Amino acid sequence: MTKLSILTIAMTTVFSATAFAASEPIEIIPAAVITNPEKVELGKMLFFEPRLSKSGFISCNSCHNLSLGGVDALPTSIGHNWQQGPINSPTVLNAEYGLAQFWDGRAKDLKEQAGGPIENPKEMGFSHELAVDTIRSMPAYQARFANVYQNDGITIEEITDAIAEFEKTLVTPNAPFDKFLLGDKNAINSEAKAGYQLFKDKGCVSCHNGPAVGDLF
Amino acid sequence: MTKLSILTIAMTTVFSATAFAASEPIEIIPAAVITNPEKVELGKMLFFEPRLSKSGFISCNSCHNLSLGGVDALPTSIGHNWQQGPINSPTVLNAEYGLAQFWDGRAKDLKEQAGGPIENPKEMGFSHELAVDTIRSMPAYQARFANVYQNDGITIEEITDAIAEFEKTLVTPNAPFDKFLLGDKNAINSEAKAGYQLFKDKGCVSCHNGPAVGDLF
Repeated sequence: MTKLSILTIAMTTVFSATAFAASEPIEIIPAAVITNPEKVELGKMLFFEPRLSKSGFISCNSCHNLSLGGVDALPTSIGHNWQQGPINSPTVLNAEYGLAQFWDGRAKDLKEQAGGPIENPKEMGFSHELAVDTIRSMPAYQARFANVYQNDGITIEEITDAIAEFEKTLVTPNAPFDKFLLGDKNAINSEAKAGYQLFKDKGCVSCHNGPAVGDLF
Repeated sequence: MTKLSILTIAMTTVFSATAFAASEPIEIIPAAVITNPEKVELGKMLFFEPRLSKSGFISCNSCHNLSLGGVDALPTSIGHNWQQGPINSPTVLNAEYGLAQFWDGRAKDLKEQAGGPIENPKEMGFSHELAVDTIRSMPAYQARFANVYQNDGITIEEITDAIAEFEKTLVTPNAPFDKFLLGDKNAINSEAKAGYQLFKDKGCVSCHNGPAVGDLF
Protein backbone atom coordinates (compact mmCIF):
# COMPACT_ATOMS: atom_id res chain seq x y z
CA MET A 1 0.00 0.00 0.00
CA THR A 2 1.52 3.33 -1.02
CA LYS A 3 1.72 6.32 1.29
CA LEU A 4 -0.77 8.11 -0.89
CA SER A 5 -3.42 5.43 -0.58
CA ILE A 6 -3.00 5.34 3.21
CA LEU A 7 -3.54 9.07 3.24
CA THR A 8 -6.60 8.66 1.04
CA ILE A 9 -8.17 6.19 3.44
CA ALA A 10 -7.31 8.33 6.45
CA MET A 11 -8.99 11.35 4.92
CA THR A 12 -12.14 9.61 3.75
CA THR A 13 -14.15 10.92 6.70
CA VAL A 14 -13.10 14.48 6.01
CA PHE A 15 -13.91 14.22 2.33
CA SER A 16 -17.30 12.69 2.92
CA ALA A 17 -18.21 15.63 5.16
CA THR A 18 -17.16 18.17 2.55
CA ALA A 19 -18.34 16.33 -0.57
CA PHE A 20 -21.78 17.91 -0.31
CA ALA A 21 -20.29 21.40 0.11
CA ALA A 22 -18.03 20.94 -2.90
CA SER A 23 -21.01 20.31 -5.16
CA GLU A 24 -22.95 23.36 -3.89
CA PRO A 25 -22.85 26.80 -5.57
CA ILE A 26 -22.46 28.57 -2.22
CA GLU A 27 -19.28 28.00 -0.26
CA ILE A 28 -18.61 28.11 3.46
CA ILE A 29 -16.91 31.08 5.12
CA PRO A 30 -13.62 29.64 6.37
CA ALA A 31 -12.04 30.68 9.69
CA ALA A 32 -9.36 33.35 9.38
CA VAL A 33 -5.80 32.10 8.99
CA ILE A 34 -3.46 34.57 10.68
CA THR A 35 0.08 34.30 9.36
CA ASN A 36 1.38 37.67 10.55
CA PRO A 37 -0.14 38.52 13.94
CA GLU A 38 1.94 41.71 14.34
CA LYS A 39 0.51 43.08 11.09
CA VAL A 40 -3.02 42.14 12.15
CA GLU A 41 -2.54 43.87 15.50
CA LEU A 42 -1.16 46.99 13.80
CA GLY A 43 -4.13 46.96 11.43
CA LYS A 44 -6.48 46.66 14.39
CA MET A 45 -4.92 49.73 16.01
CA LEU A 46 -5.35 51.65 12.75
CA PHE A 47 -8.93 50.45 12.28
CA PHE A 48 -9.81 52.01 15.65
CA GLU A 49 -7.59 55.10 15.10
CA PRO A 50 -9.62 58.35 14.89
CA ARG A 51 -6.43 60.30 14.20
CA LEU A 52 -6.62 59.00 10.64
CA SER A 53 -9.41 61.58 10.23
CA LYS A 54 -9.12 65.36 9.96
CA SER A 55 -11.14 65.88 13.14
CA GLY A 56 -9.40 63.17 15.15
CA PHE A 57 -12.92 61.93 15.94
CA ILE A 58 -13.80 59.45 13.18
CA SER A 59 -12.19 56.05 12.71
CA CYS A 60 -12.94 53.13 10.38
CA ASN A 61 -14.91 51.74 13.32
CA SER A 62 -17.20 54.80 13.43
CA CYS A 63 -19.12 53.61 10.36
CA HIS A 64 -18.02 49.96 10.38
CA ASN A 65 -18.69 49.51 14.09
CA LEU A 66 -17.59 46.08 15.23
CA SER A 67 -20.00 46.31 18.17
CA LEU A 68 -22.86 46.51 15.67
CA GLY A 69 -21.93 43.83 13.14
CA GLY A 70 -19.46 45.99 11.24
CA VAL A 71 -21.97 48.72 10.32
CA ASP A 72 -23.31 51.91 11.93
CA ALA A 73 -26.97 50.88 11.90
CA LEU A 74 -27.90 54.22 10.30
CA PRO A 75 -29.75 54.80 7.01
CA THR A 76 -26.71 56.64 5.67
CA SER A 77 -23.46 57.38 7.46
CA ILE A 78 -22.45 60.51 9.37
CA GLY A 79 -19.11 61.96 8.30
CA HIS A 80 -16.77 64.87 8.94
CA ASN A 81 -18.53 67.92 10.37
CA TRP A 82 -21.73 65.81 10.75
CA GLN A 83 -22.24 65.61 6.99
CA GLN A 84 -24.87 63.08 6.03
CA GLY A 85 -23.28 60.80 3.48
CA PRO A 86 -25.18 59.43 0.48
CA ILE A 87 -24.69 55.73 1.22
CA ASN A 88 -25.45 53.05 3.76
CA SER A 89 -22.29 51.57 5.30
CA PRO A 90 -21.68 48.00 4.14
CA THR A 91 -20.42 45.62 6.77
CA VAL A 92 -16.72 44.79 7.07
CA LEU A 93 -17.60 41.27 8.23
CA ASN A 94 -16.63 38.79 5.50
CA ALA A 95 -15.87 41.76 3.25
CA GLU A 96 -12.77 39.97 1.98
CA TYR A 97 -15.13 37.73 0.02
CA GLY A 98 -16.64 40.58 -1.95
CA LEU A 99 -15.87 40.44 -5.66
CA ALA A 100 -14.86 44.10 -5.27
CA GLN A 101 -15.26 46.83 -2.62
CA PHE A 102 -17.59 49.84 -2.17
CA TRP A 103 -21.20 49.47 -3.32
CA ASP A 104 -20.20 50.29 -6.88
CA GLY A 105 -17.17 48.02 -6.79
CA ARG A 106 -14.70 50.76 -7.63
CA ALA A 107 -11.98 49.38 -5.35
CA LYS A 108 -10.57 46.00 -6.27
CA ASP A 109 -9.78 44.85 -2.73
CA LEU A 110 -9.81 45.74 0.98
CA LYS A 111 -6.45 47.51 0.80
CA GLU A 112 -7.61 49.81 -1.98
CA GLN A 113 -10.92 50.42 -0.19
CA ALA A 114 -9.25 51.38 3.11
CA GLY A 115 -7.67 54.45 1.56
CA GLY A 116 -10.97 55.83 0.30
CA PRO A 117 -12.79 57.07 3.41
CA ILE A 118 -9.63 58.69 4.84
CA GLU A 119 -9.52 61.25 2.03
CA ASN A 120 -13.26 61.45 1.28
CA PRO A 121 -14.33 65.00 2.26
CA LYS A 122 -17.72 63.67 3.43
CA GLU A 123 -16.24 60.86 5.48
CA MET A 124 -12.96 61.22 7.39
CA GLY A 125 -12.15 64.45 5.54
CA PHE A 126 -8.35 64.08 5.67
CA SER A 127 -5.65 63.58 3.03
CA HIS A 128 -3.37 60.58 2.71
CA GLU A 129 -0.35 62.83 3.18
CA LEU A 130 -1.61 64.33 6.46
CA ALA A 131 -2.86 60.98 7.73
CA VAL A 132 0.57 59.47 7.13
CA ASP A 133 2.27 62.46 8.82
CA THR A 134 0.03 61.98 11.87
CA ILE A 135 0.79 58.27 12.18
CA ARG A 136 4.50 58.89 11.56
CA SER A 137 4.59 61.37 14.43
CA MET A 138 3.89 58.67 17.02
CA PRO A 139 6.84 56.61 18.31
CA ALA A 140 4.65 53.62 19.15
CA TYR A 141 3.51 53.42 15.54
CA GLN A 142 7.05 53.97 14.24
CA ALA A 143 8.25 50.92 16.16
CA ARG A 144 5.36 48.73 15.04
CA PHE A 145 5.64 49.71 11.36
CA ALA A 146 9.42 49.20 11.43
CA ASN A 147 8.87 45.74 12.87
CA VAL A 148 6.13 44.71 10.44
CA TYR A 149 7.45 46.30 7.23
CA GLN A 150 11.20 46.21 7.97
CA ASN A 151 11.90 49.78 6.96
CA ASP A 152 11.94 53.24 8.50
CA GLY A 153 9.20 54.99 6.57
CA ILE A 154 5.46 54.76 7.01
CA THR A 155 3.38 54.98 3.84
CA ILE A 156 -0.31 54.99 3.00
CA GLU A 157 0.28 51.67 1.24
CA GLU A 158 1.50 50.16 4.51
CA ILE A 159 -1.34 51.72 6.52
CA THR A 160 -4.02 50.36 4.18
CA ASP A 161 -2.24 47.01 3.85
CA ALA A 162 -2.28 46.57 7.65
CA ILE A 163 -5.95 47.61 7.91
CA ALA A 164 -6.84 45.12 5.18
CA GLU A 165 -4.90 42.37 6.97
CA PHE A 166 -6.92 43.03 10.13
CA GLU A 167 -10.19 43.14 8.18
CA LYS A 168 -9.45 39.71 6.71
CA THR A 169 -9.79 38.34 10.25
CA LEU A 170 -13.32 39.75 10.58
CA VAL A 171 -15.13 36.67 9.37
CA THR A 172 -18.11 34.69 10.64
CA PRO A 173 -17.36 30.99 10.17
CA ASN A 174 -19.50 28.16 11.53
CA ALA A 175 -22.87 29.82 10.99
CA PRO A 176 -25.77 27.34 10.80
CA PHE A 177 -25.72 27.56 6.99
CA ASP A 178 -21.98 26.84 6.93
CA LYS A 179 -22.61 23.76 9.07
CA PHE A 180 -25.39 22.72 6.71
CA LEU A 181 -23.05 23.06 3.74
CA LEU A 182 -20.52 20.93 5.61
CA GLY A 183 -23.03 18.12 5.89
CA ASP A 184 -25.00 18.75 9.11
CA LYS A 185 -28.50 18.38 7.64
CA ASN A 186 -30.14 19.55 10.89
CA ALA A 187 -28.19 22.80 11.15
CA ILE A 188 -30.98 24.77 9.43
CA ASN A 189 -34.72 24.22 9.53
CA SER A 190 -36.94 22.92 6.73
CA GLU A 191 -38.09 26.41 5.66
CA ALA A 192 -34.47 27.45 5.22
CA LYS A 193 -33.75 24.29 3.24
CA ALA A 194 -36.75 24.93 1.00
CA GLY A 195 -35.63 28.53 0.54
CA TYR A 196 -32.15 27.42 -0.42
CA GLN A 197 -33.59 24.94 -2.94
CA LEU A 198 -35.75 27.70 -4.43
CA PHE A 199 -32.71 30.02 -4.50
CA LYS A 200 -30.94 27.41 -6.62
CA ASP A 201 -33.92 26.38 -8.76
CA LYS A 202 -34.79 29.95 -9.75
CA GLY A 203 -31.23 30.64 -10.83
CA CYS A 204 -30.33 33.22 -8.13
CA VAL A 205 -27.12 31.30 -7.68
CA SER A 206 -25.93 32.06 -11.19
CA CYS A 207 -24.85 35.45 -9.83
CA HIS A 208 -24.99 34.95 -6.06
CA ASN A 209 -22.55 32.15 -5.45
CA GLY A 210 -19.25 31.38 -3.73
CA PRO A 211 -18.42 32.32 -0.14
CA ALA A 212 -20.56 35.10 1.39
CA VAL A 213 -23.18 34.29 -1.28
CA GLY A 214 -21.40 36.46 -3.83
CA ASP A 215 -21.35 39.52 -1.58
CA LEU A 216 -21.42 42.81 -3.51
CA PHE A 217 -21.55 41.09 -6.86
CA MET B 1 3.19 28.10 68.56
CA THR B 2 -0.37 29.24 67.79
CA LYS B 3 -1.88 29.18 64.32
CA LEU B 4 -1.92 32.95 64.34
CA SER B 5 1.78 33.28 64.94
CA ILE B 6 2.56 30.75 62.21
CA LEU B 7 0.46 32.84 59.85
CA THR B 8 2.30 35.96 61.00
CA ILE B 9 5.67 34.45 60.16
CA ALA B 10 4.43 33.11 56.86
CA MET B 11 3.21 36.53 55.80
CA THR B 12 6.25 38.49 56.91
CA THR B 13 7.57 38.75 53.37
CA VAL B 14 4.30 40.12 52.08
CA PHE B 15 4.04 42.66 54.88
CA SER B 16 7.59 43.87 54.50
CA ALA B 17 6.91 44.56 50.82
CA THR B 18 3.81 46.59 51.59
CA ALA B 19 4.98 48.31 54.78
CA PHE B 20 6.56 51.11 52.77
CA ALA B 21 3.38 51.62 50.71
CA ALA B 22 1.25 51.76 53.84
CA SER B 23 3.23 54.71 55.19
CA GLU B 24 3.08 56.66 51.92
CA PRO B 25 0.44 59.31 51.15
CA ILE B 26 -0.10 57.94 47.65
CA GLU B 27 -1.61 54.49 47.29
CA ILE B 28 -1.24 51.89 44.57
CA ILE B 29 -3.94 51.31 41.95
CA PRO B 30 -5.16 47.80 42.71
CA ALA B 31 -6.14 45.33 39.97
CA ALA B 32 -9.87 45.15 39.28
CA VAL B 33 -11.81 42.55 41.23
CA ILE B 34 -14.66 41.28 39.06
CA THR B 35 -17.43 39.73 41.12
CA ASN B 36 -20.19 39.86 38.51
CA PRO B 37 -18.75 39.20 35.03
CA GLU B 38 -22.19 39.23 33.36
CA LYS B 39 -22.81 42.75 34.62
CA VAL B 40 -19.35 43.87 33.49
CA GLU B 41 -19.95 42.41 30.02
CA LEU B 42 -23.35 44.12 29.80
CA GLY B 43 -21.73 47.39 30.86
CA LYS B 44 -19.06 46.93 28.20
CA MET B 45 -21.74 46.50 25.52
CA LEU B 46 -23.45 49.67 26.72
CA PHE B 47 -20.17 51.61 26.90
CA PHE B 48 -19.65 50.91 23.18
CA GLU B 49 -23.36 51.38 22.31
CA PRO B 50 -23.96 54.38 20.00
CA ARG B 51 -27.72 53.77 20.15
CA LEU B 52 -27.65 55.39 23.60
CA SER B 53 -27.31 58.68 21.65
CA LYS B 54 -29.98 60.52 19.67
CA SER B 55 -28.00 60.12 16.43
CA GLY B 56 -27.08 56.49 16.97
CA PHE B 57 -23.51 57.60 16.22
CA ILE B 58 -22.00 58.58 19.59
CA SER B 59 -21.17 56.16 22.39
CA CYS B 60 -19.38 56.59 25.72
CA ASN B 61 -16.32 55.37 23.83
CA SER B 62 -16.52 58.26 21.32
CA CYS B 63 -15.13 60.72 23.88
CA HIS B 64 -13.64 58.22 26.34
CA ASN B 65 -11.93 56.18 23.64
CA LEU B 66 -10.31 53.10 25.12
CA SER B 67 -7.94 52.97 22.14
CA LEU B 68 -6.58 56.35 23.21
CA GLY B 69 -6.22 55.96 26.96
CA GLY B 70 -9.88 56.64 27.71
CA VAL B 71 -9.96 60.12 26.13
CA ASP B 72 -10.58 61.57 22.67
CA ALA B 73 -7.24 63.38 22.38
CA LEU B 74 -9.06 66.57 21.35
CA PRO B 75 -8.88 70.01 23.04
CA THR B 76 -12.63 69.81 23.71
CA SER B 77 -15.03 67.06 22.72
CA ILE B 78 -17.26 66.83 19.66
CA GLY B 79 -20.90 66.10 20.44
CA HIS B 80 -24.29 65.69 18.79
CA ASN B 81 -24.55 67.43 15.44
CA TRP B 82 -20.77 68.16 15.60
CA GLN B 83 -21.21 70.64 18.44
CA GLN B 84 -17.92 71.64 20.03
CA GLY B 85 -18.32 71.03 23.75
CA PRO B 86 -16.81 73.34 26.36
CA ILE B 87 -14.66 70.76 28.13
CA ASN B 88 -11.77 68.38 27.62
CA SER B 89 -12.79 64.74 28.15
CA PRO B 90 -11.28 63.31 31.33
CA THR B 91 -10.06 59.73 31.09
CA VAL B 92 -12.19 56.84 32.29
CA LEU B 93 -9.04 54.95 33.30
CA ASN B 94 -8.88 54.74 37.10
CA ALA B 95 -11.88 57.10 37.21
CA GLU B 96 -13.36 55.03 40.03
CA TYR B 97 -10.72 56.57 42.27
CA GLY B 98 -11.88 60.13 41.70
CA LEU B 99 -13.29 61.80 44.79
CA ALA B 100 -16.21 62.75 42.52
CA GLN B 101 -16.97 62.76 38.78
CA PHE B 102 -17.05 65.43 36.03
CA TRP B 103 -14.45 68.21 36.23
CA ASP B 104 -16.59 70.14 38.70
CA GLY B 105 -17.36 67.04 40.75
CA ARG B 106 -21.13 67.37 40.35
CA ALA B 107 -21.69 63.61 40.13
CA LYS B 108 -20.84 61.61 43.20
CA ASP B 109 -19.80 58.42 41.43
CA LEU B 110 -19.41 56.64 38.07
CA LYS B 111 -23.04 55.52 38.01
CA GLU B 112 -24.33 59.06 38.43
CA GLN B 113 -21.82 60.35 35.87
CA ALA B 114 -22.82 57.80 33.23
CA GLY B 115 -26.32 59.26 32.96
CA GLY B 116 -25.05 62.78 32.23
CA PRO B 117 -23.70 62.63 28.66
CA ILE B 118 -26.70 60.60 27.41
CA GLU B 119 -29.10 63.49 28.04
CA ASN B 120 -26.66 66.38 27.54
CA PRO B 121 -27.87 68.23 24.39
CA LYS B 122 -24.24 68.99 23.44
CA GLU B 123 -23.03 65.43 23.96
CA MET B 124 -25.20 62.41 23.13
CA GLY B 125 -28.28 64.62 22.81
CA PHE B 126 -30.81 61.98 23.87
CA SER B 127 -33.17 61.62 26.86
CA HIS B 128 -33.03 58.89 29.48
CA GLU B 129 -36.56 57.84 28.52
CA LEU B 130 -35.74 57.39 24.84
CA ALA B 131 -32.39 55.75 25.57
CA VAL B 132 -34.14 53.22 27.79
CA ASP B 133 -36.82 52.63 25.15
CA THR B 134 -34.11 51.95 22.56
CA ILE B 135 -32.26 49.44 24.73
CA ARG B 136 -35.54 47.79 25.76
CA SER B 137 -36.45 47.24 22.12
CA MET B 138 -33.59 44.78 21.61
CA PRO B 139 -34.14 41.13 22.61
CA ALA B 140 -30.44 40.52 23.22
CA TYR B 141 -30.37 43.32 25.79
CA GLN B 142 -33.67 42.15 27.34
CA ALA B 143 -32.16 38.74 28.02
CA ARG B 144 -28.93 40.14 29.45
CA PHE B 145 -30.67 42.66 31.72
CA ALA B 146 -33.12 40.00 32.96
CA ASN B 147 -30.18 37.76 33.80
CA VAL B 148 -28.13 40.44 35.57
CA TYR B 149 -30.91 42.33 37.38
CA GLN B 150 -33.43 39.50 37.81
CA ASN B 151 -36.45 41.43 36.61
CA ASP B 152 -38.26 42.17 33.37
CA GLY B 153 -37.82 45.92 33.10
CA ILE B 154 -34.80 47.90 31.95
CA THR B 155 -34.22 51.22 33.71
CA ILE B 156 -31.71 54.04 33.39
CA GLU B 157 -30.49 53.08 36.87
CA GLU B 158 -29.63 49.61 35.61
CA ILE B 159 -28.01 50.95 32.44
CA THR B 160 -25.77 53.36 34.35
CA ASP B 161 -25.07 50.78 37.04
CA ALA B 162 -23.80 48.31 34.42
CA ILE B 163 -21.70 50.96 32.67
CA ALA B 164 -20.15 51.94 36.01
CA GLU B 165 -19.40 48.29 36.80
CA PHE B 166 -17.53 47.98 33.49
CA GLU B 167 -15.68 51.24 34.08
CA LYS B 168 -14.43 49.97 37.45
CA THR B 169 -12.45 47.37 35.50
CA LEU B 170 -10.65 50.09 33.51
CA VAL B 171 -7.68 50.41 35.82
CA THR B 172 -3.92 50.54 35.30
CA PRO B 173 -2.27 48.51 38.07
CA ASN B 174 1.41 47.62 38.20
CA ALA B 175 2.74 50.86 36.76
CA PRO B 176 6.38 51.55 37.66
CA PHE B 177 5.26 53.94 40.43
CA ASP B 178 2.92 51.28 41.85
CA LYS B 179 5.84 48.86 41.90
CA PHE B 180 7.96 51.49 43.62
CA LEU B 181 5.28 51.99 46.27
CA LEU B 182 5.20 48.22 46.76
CA GLY B 183 8.90 48.23 47.61
CA ASP B 184 10.74 47.84 44.30
CA LYS B 185 13.19 50.70 44.73
CA ASN B 186 14.49 50.38 41.19
CA ALA B 187 11.10 50.62 39.51
CA ILE B 188 11.49 54.37 38.93
CA ASN B 189 14.65 56.37 38.26
CA SER B 190 16.40 58.79 40.62
CA GLU B 191 14.79 61.88 39.03
CA ALA B 192 11.34 60.41 39.63
CA LYS B 193 12.28 59.57 43.21
CA ALA B 194 13.55 63.12 43.79
CA GLY B 195 10.35 64.49 42.26
CA TYR B 196 8.22 62.35 44.52
CA GLN B 197 10.21 63.52 47.55
CA LEU B 198 9.70 67.15 46.51
CA PHE B 199 5.98 66.43 45.92
CA LYS B 200 5.76 65.32 49.53
CA ASP B 201 8.08 67.98 51.04
CA LYS B 202 6.23 70.88 49.42
CA GLY B 203 2.88 69.65 50.71
CA CYS B 204 1.32 68.73 47.34
CA VAL B 205 0.23 65.50 48.96
CA SER B 206 -2.01 67.25 51.46
CA CYS B 207 -4.57 67.43 48.64
CA HIS B 208 -3.19 64.98 46.06
CA ASN B 209 -3.09 61.71 47.92
CA GLY B 210 -4.62 58.23 47.91
CA PRO B 211 -4.92 56.02 44.83
CA ALA B 212 -4.71 57.83 41.45
CA VAL B 213 -2.94 60.66 43.33
CA GLY B 214 -6.25 62.16 44.40
CA ASP B 215 -7.62 62.32 40.86
CA LEU B 216 -10.12 65.14 40.31
CA PHE B 217 -9.80 66.40 43.88
